[in-house]
Amino acid sequence: MNLNKLELINFRNYDKQIINFSTNINLFYGGNSSGKTNIIEAIYYISTVKSFRCSEDIFLLKNDCDFFQISADITYENNINKKYCIEYNKINNKKNLKIDEKKIYRFNELIGKIPLVLFSPEHILLIKNEPQLRRKYIDNILINTDIEYYNLYNKFIKIVYQRNSILKLIKENKLNKKNIEVLNIQLKDLSIKIIEHRKKIIDNLNKIINLKLVEDDRKIELKYCIKKFDKINNDNLEIYFQDFFEKYIENEIVRCATLIGPHRDDIEIYLNDKLLKYYGSEGQQRLSCIILKLAEGLYIKEKLNVYPIVLLDDFTSELDETNKIFISKIFGNFKQIIITTTSKENIKNIRVDKCFFVENGRINDNEQDK
Amino acid sequence: MNLNKLELINFRNYDKQIINFSTNINLFYGGNSSGKTNIIEAIYYISTVKSFRCSEDIFLLKNDCDFFQISADITYENNINKKYCIEYNKINNKKNLKIDEKKIYRFNELIGKIPLVLFSPEHILLIKNEPQLRRKYIDNILINTDIEYYNLYNKFIKIVYQRNSILKLIKENKLNKKNIEVLNIQLKDLSIKIIEHRKKIIDNLNKIINLKLVEDDRKIELKYCIKKFDKINNDNLEIYFQDFFEKYIENEIVRCATLIGPHRDDIEIYLNDKLLKYYGSEGQQRLSCIILKLAEGLYIKEKLNVYPIVLLDDFTSELDETNKIFISKIFGNFKQIIITTTSKENIKNIRVDKCFFVENGRINDNEQDK
Repeated sequence: MNLNKLELINFRNYDKQIINFSTNINLFYGGNSSGKTNIIEAIYYISTVKSFRCSEDIFLLKNDCDFFQISADITYENNINKKYCIEYNKINNKKNLKIDEKKIYRFNELIGKIPLVLFSPEHILLIKNEPQLRRKYIDNILINTDIEYYNLYNKFIKIVYQRNSILKLIKENKLNKKNIEVLNIQLKDLSIKIIEHRKKIIDNLNKIINLKLVEDDRKIELKYCIKKFDKINNDNLEIYFQDFFEKYIENEIVRCATLIGPHRDDIEIYLNDKLLKYYGSEGQQRLSCIILKLAEGLYIKEKLNVYPIVLLDDFTSELDETNKIFISKIFGNFKQIIITTTSKENIKNIRVDKCFFVENGRINDNEQDK
Repeated sequence: MNLNKLELINFRNYDKQIINFSTNINLFYGGNSSGKTNIIEAIYYISTVKSFRCSEDIFLLKNDCDFFQISADITYENNINKKYCIEYNKINNKKNLKIDEKKIYRFNELIGKIPLVLFSPEHILLIKNEPQLRRKYIDNILINTDIEYYNLYNKFIKIVYQRNSILKLIKENKLNKKNIEVLNIQLKDLSIKIIEHRKKIIDNLNKIINLKLVEDDRKIELKYCIKKFDKINNDNLEIYFQDFFEKYIENEIVRCATLIGPHRDDIEIYLNDKLLKYYGSEGQQRLSCIILKLAEGLYIKEKLNVYPIVLLDDFTSELDETNKIFISKIFGNFKQIIITTTSKENIKNIRVDKCFFVENGRINDNEQDK
């Protein structure tokens, strides 16, 4: 898949901007606040109908403008062209989506049409932070590549929600413990299926990382951790869940919360058999995080048979030359890549196919200049 | 204040290392995972008796070692020398502290003895994240420079805790609403005092930032935001608190939580009158965050009449040349500064007094080599 052209109107610090991309490695360079990340954000927005930097569309508007528009020309592997366009209007706080000039009323028709992987500096929290972001990393890949998981996951979320409401009613003496038994069975069955899916993709990602991406003596490994409440030495999840419900139901009633299930699990990340979160240096954490993101890209490629666009916002920061080159070698696994950096010097040892100089919301396409 | 010498034994990736610092700008440079941040961490540890990267001391041990030791030689403004030494032992999971070879049994005797300010890459969350970190930024400066605030704050935390317990007992019908009235008055009085202290230091920081640190057309401004629950247009906090308790007591009882007070407030950060969190670029957020940290340093200097050590871990990442030079000009306000970076090229336009090349847990003092 290839993003040929991106057009922005009133988006962030851009008035009106047309960008023609190379099918390979594109570099956007320029000073702080020139507008580099805004390009990445616009591509992410047209793929997912949201920003990764803020939750409200109004912040994406250029000063005092009433609307913004993002359009993208895409060519797929089978040579079919598609034109996507999203417009946001401040006055009615609404978005309009068009595919090939035709108005589309359901946004989820766009989801999955422009697959991409994004690394932005704050993704380092994937390593540093609490389990939530790591679960999201795994779930997002699964949701975008496996419709069965998508349905399973939505069902699971609904059951947890229902179960918590029942726990609350039991606490208030409006229901008795018998009423939760059916939900317990559903929760257990769905949990086990979700855990199986997650373990399978983790196996896949481990293989992609250590057989395809990392060829030196580094070993990066993801491990699925089921949150266990006691030392019952039992790997049979069926029995573990059953025991859990019996033992902890009072605790769950007091807290009106479902304390067991994949919404509480973690994915631990190891570098050379040491927990990266505690033992890794800033550079190791950053490098590993970029590798996880690139592994996500290769997984999408294998599953959907489409090369996702790779967006790397300021990936060179905090990396030394050896590691920059290490990452750039992995680029060979992909087609279209879009990177940003403050200065061309930061990527002097990395091959780039097209350079764009960004200054104050204006983009100068170096290739055309020459 | 000046850190003359730091000695490490079995700390992170260091076996045994002695570092003699310059009284001005010290640079540690070297590849990823060479051990640069470990030096910053060791200095932070001897000042605060904890790490800023992990919560458990055991992670700070070099592979399979049973103990680590950090020693620091400090000279104060009045030419008095002090030697501090902390040893952690894995076997009994205990720390020993010595000042001038004399064993000290209360760790808080060390607090404030080695004032410092630290910027590390994850401090960017101060700008990006929820209010908690911004409150902590302000409270930490106050706690370390104002004993009155320290006492006030501890008292406040205790009252909130007590009040939440009483709310719980009211919910369980073990007490009635009358029982909370005394605590309401205490909470109100303490809250107002804390808010006044915070507003005053925010005024001070704004002056330091915009009169002393930022001399160009940028304007960085902190604003204190009291979390209000309705649009009662009343700036009289006495009355606002009273109205709140009357109106929201049922809500507080249901949630067993004190919903008003400085533990819920925020400090908004503006760049040129726009909210930095939503409108700022990555570079602007990072730059502003470093400036906030340096303002903290100048405030400490004004209050305690001691130059704090300035620790900047990888501050050049994501900054363009103009902004790097901008920050380095601010360095003139301080004495001892310790910075790290992956390559000397990143700071080619910044004056450095002593360079240390770091490789695999070994430090090569360039000045001695020449």
